[in-house]
Amino acid sequence: MKNILLLSFFTLLLYGCGSRQETKIIRTEVPPRSEGQTDVLQLRCEPLETVRVGFIGLGGRGRAAVSRFVSIEGAQISAICDFDQDNLNKTQEIITNGNHPKAKEYTGEKGWQELCAGNEVDLIYICTDWLSHTPIAVYAMNHGKHAAIEVPAAVSIAECWELVDTAEKTRRHCMMLENCCYDRFELATLNMAQQGVFGEIVHTEGAYIHDLRPTNSNERMLKNSSDLTGYPDDYIKNWRMKYNAEHQGNPYPTHGLGPVCQILNIHRGDKMDYLISMSSDQFGITEYAKEKFGDNSPQAKQSYGLGDMNVTMIKTQKGKTIMVQHDITSPRPYSRIHLVSGTKGFAQKYPVEQIALDPNAHDALSKPQMDSILNAYEHPFYKEAGEQAAKLGAVAHGGMDYIMDYRLVYCLRKGLPLDQDVYDAAEWSSLVELTELSVKNNGAPVEIPDFTRGAWNKLNRLKFAE
Amino acid sequence: MKNILLLSFFTLLLYGCGSRQETKIIRTEVPPRSEGQTDVLQLRCEPLETVRVGFIGLGGRGRAAVSRFVSIEGAQISAICDFDQDNLNKTQEIITNGNHPKAKEYTGEKGWQELCAGNEVDLIYICTDWLSHTPIAVYAMNHGKHAAIEVPAAVSIAECWELVDTAEKTRRHCMMLENCCYDRFELATLNMAQQGVFGEIVHTEGAYIHDLRPTNSNERMLKNSSDLTGYPDDYIKNWRMKYNAEHQGNPYPTHGLGPVCQILNIHRGDKMDYLISMSSDQFGITEYAKEKFGDNSPQAKQSYGLGDMNVTMIKTQKGKTIMVQHDITSPRPYSRIHLVSGTKGFAQKYPVEQIALDPNAHDALSKPQMDSILNAYEHPFYKEAGEQAAKLGAVAHGGMDYIMDYRLVYCLRKGLPLDQDVYDAAEWSSLVELTELSVKNNGAPVEIPDFTRGAWNKLNRLKFAE
Repeated sequence: MKNILLLSFFTLLLYGCGSRQETKIIRTEVPPRSEGQTDVLQLRCEPLETVRVGFIGLGGRGRAAVSRFVSIEGAQISAICDFDQDNLNKTQEIITNGNHPKAKEYTGEKGWQELCAGNEVDLIYICTDWLSHTPIAVYAMNHGKHAAIEVPAAVSIAECWELVDTAEKTRRHCMMLENCCYDRFELATLNMAQQGVFGEIVHTEGAYIHDLRPTNSNERMLKNSSDLTGYPDDYIKNWRMKYNAEHQGNPYPTHGLGPVCQILNIHRGDKMDYLISMSSDQFGITEYAKEKFGDNSPQAKQSYGLGDMNVTMIKTQKGKTIMVQHDITSPRPYSRIHLVSGTKGFAQKYPVEQIALDPNAHDALSKPQMDSILNAYEHPFYKEAGEQAAKLGAVAHGGMDYIMDYRLVYCLRKGLPLDQDVYDAAEWSSLVELTELSVKNNGAPVEIPDFTRGAWNKLNRLKFAE
Repeated sequence: MKNILLLSFFTLLLYGCGSRQETKIIRTEVPPRSEGQTDVLQLRCEPLETVRVGFIGLGGRGRAAVSRFVSIEGAQISAICDFDQDNLNKTQEIITNGNHPKAKEYTGEKGWQELCAGNEVDLIYICTDWLSHTPIAVYAMNHGKHAAIEVPAAVSIAECWELVDTAEKTRRHCMMLENCCYDRFELATLNMAQQGVFGEIVHTEGAYIHDLRPTNSNERMLKNSSDLTGYPDDYIKNWRMKYNAEHQGNPYPTHGLGPVCQILNIHRGDKMDYLISMSSDQFGITEYAKEKFGDNSPQAKQSYGLGDMNVTMIKTQKGKTIMVQHDITSPRPYSRIHLVSGTKGFAQKYPVEQIALDPNAHDALSKPQMDSILNAYEHPFYKEAGEQAAKLGAVAHGGMDYIMDYRLVYCLRKGLPLDQDVYDAAEWSSLVELTELSVKNNGAPVEIPDFTRGAWNKLNRLKFAE
């Protein structure tokens, strides 16, 4: 990790069980805001009649994004960038098949910088490996572009602050592309929460549980980690596996965390205060590698730092709790959990959709009753764009990715604040390093920085711009 | 709390993120074992042709136990004890309706001591309030009786050690009545785990999620807490509410924890190492009281310490993790979760029963497939006694309570080790105080004592006596 954190300790004196105890909360450094720099809450920028987009990173995820953008009104795919000519060709094909003119191509070591510095785009849409997300977004904003970044937006606290400071200095939008915030069920429960159906929200849960062993254990495991900055080749083909091999905690927390942070109005009346985090040891990847490649294979002998299961607990300023889990190694059905528990009702998405409401919450609603309430609280985004979203199928993850892009373009065209701001990106991504810090310290509490530097209570709830 | 803990700190030096950090694990004192005292692992006592039982505490739970014991071969209900004559009368009725002779009655301040000291019973079956569990069990063992204790067996670390030391000194059985270990699904998954169906078990989850607001918020809330030792009257009518009002953490952890500790072979080849614990603030009880009794009612104004949701994470010596939740306040369906995740497969009981197995674990088994595997791995206890258990219905919680009592009597008659020993009782109950300690210290890690004092690896797996 390039950015070494300066750590300080915040000592709380507590009196428990009759004897005086000292509890330390591990705290990372909060850089002071430069003079004249102000927050970008509810940032409005100049409306753009056409949003000219430059896509950087044209692997599976980048090409899926381009496949969606060909259907989005008011968006223009102006430039594309990748190291790989084959990816560029495939992307041009998607663009021309969608009846759009070919985009300008960028490639090579400095391709992404040339694209960001050029004049043909308003928005840089970043679908690269995790470690290049922040550097590209910062470069883009410094060259006057808005930045949209795949998850996680950053992998260290230093990077989180870099995103925040750059957005505040340049007054550009910086949105993390947390698509799960746009899932139909997640949005319906957000709508229900905002209308008081669950009462006071007390506890929430989210997760990324997705058995990725086949993806993570193929020939990529043969490669050895060395200098992560050594673009492209080895690193590009191995980046996720390599990152996970060298880290602990929860490196991919945002799919579960984003939607429940929205429901809890994080930095819009409440804020995440501190977390504790614990991982199991690693068992699954090595066992899988032994069976696939043999006991003496390089894959079976490779060290792999990430525990199979990580569980993180977060306490908010207002006394609410969030549980976040990560497991990409265990054979079990996919789950983001998405659980919302309040003083009046309850909802959960995985393993089965359930809603239960006072005074009969001992039993979940029947399927017809649940469908009826989900219909009644269907989020306006799905009323507006649900039909088009459904048509796109796989490239939109069942619709949510399309709704996300549709909203991004809509807000940019109208000059409205985006649904997710740079503080969301920083807060949600900050868990990457903070969970690792807690895990390395036996689960000790770690403070979650206030990335708004004091403005978390300025807005009183999450409200999407219309 | 009467027993003030002496706390010591165990300092670990860790190197994280390039800078040296100190992490303290809070450690409670481990009392030295007296000379000549040895462990009671696999304790065998003299076989009893008839097990003569004395029941202390004849509220709902105690009378349900008596209702089951009238059907258990080889058991004799010899004595009963309660402060309340009405409870004694109702219990005698259950006994005589079951075609058994009336039991000897004990009552008054010293009734339970007289019963324990007498000669007409072999086993004391304790269904009283939480705070009297350990004192009665210790008194019983010191008077040569075996003790069976409702959950939790103890509410402090000092009490846990008292149980262990007394069992070791007196060589008497001390079993906590953790009925959920005998649930059909829990036992089937234990059987599957022991036969390797899930591969190496990596992560487990358990819970006690049960909306008890109506029970906890009736007239009992009118009473004020004062001296918890002031038997009977006020305290007896209020004990659970009062305990929860004055404590934090997870006061009732064993229903979720017991079954997964059995699956992980805790103190039979692995041991719980340390925990971290976090609670939400309290919202639900006060809101419920305001609505039921008015904003200015004593119930609405009463302080109530227990947060609505507690989540605790436990790490074992072998790198496995256990998550335990507690929520008795939020409107949501009942759940003990009971989740088992290994390198080859997965099972979960709540909110829906699911089993998923490699190489097709992305999808849970269909209902017929799952039923078939649950049948194939049905635990021998259910093959032996499942039919009788099913007949009892509500007083057996769908069967498991009967299986538990049946096994207890079976082992005592044969002179065999019991299914759950005093170390299980201590380990599982220790969370009551250890979670509170962690919560009061912002979730700081707390060591879970090795109640076997070094013998946790002497047995290599859980094996029920036959």
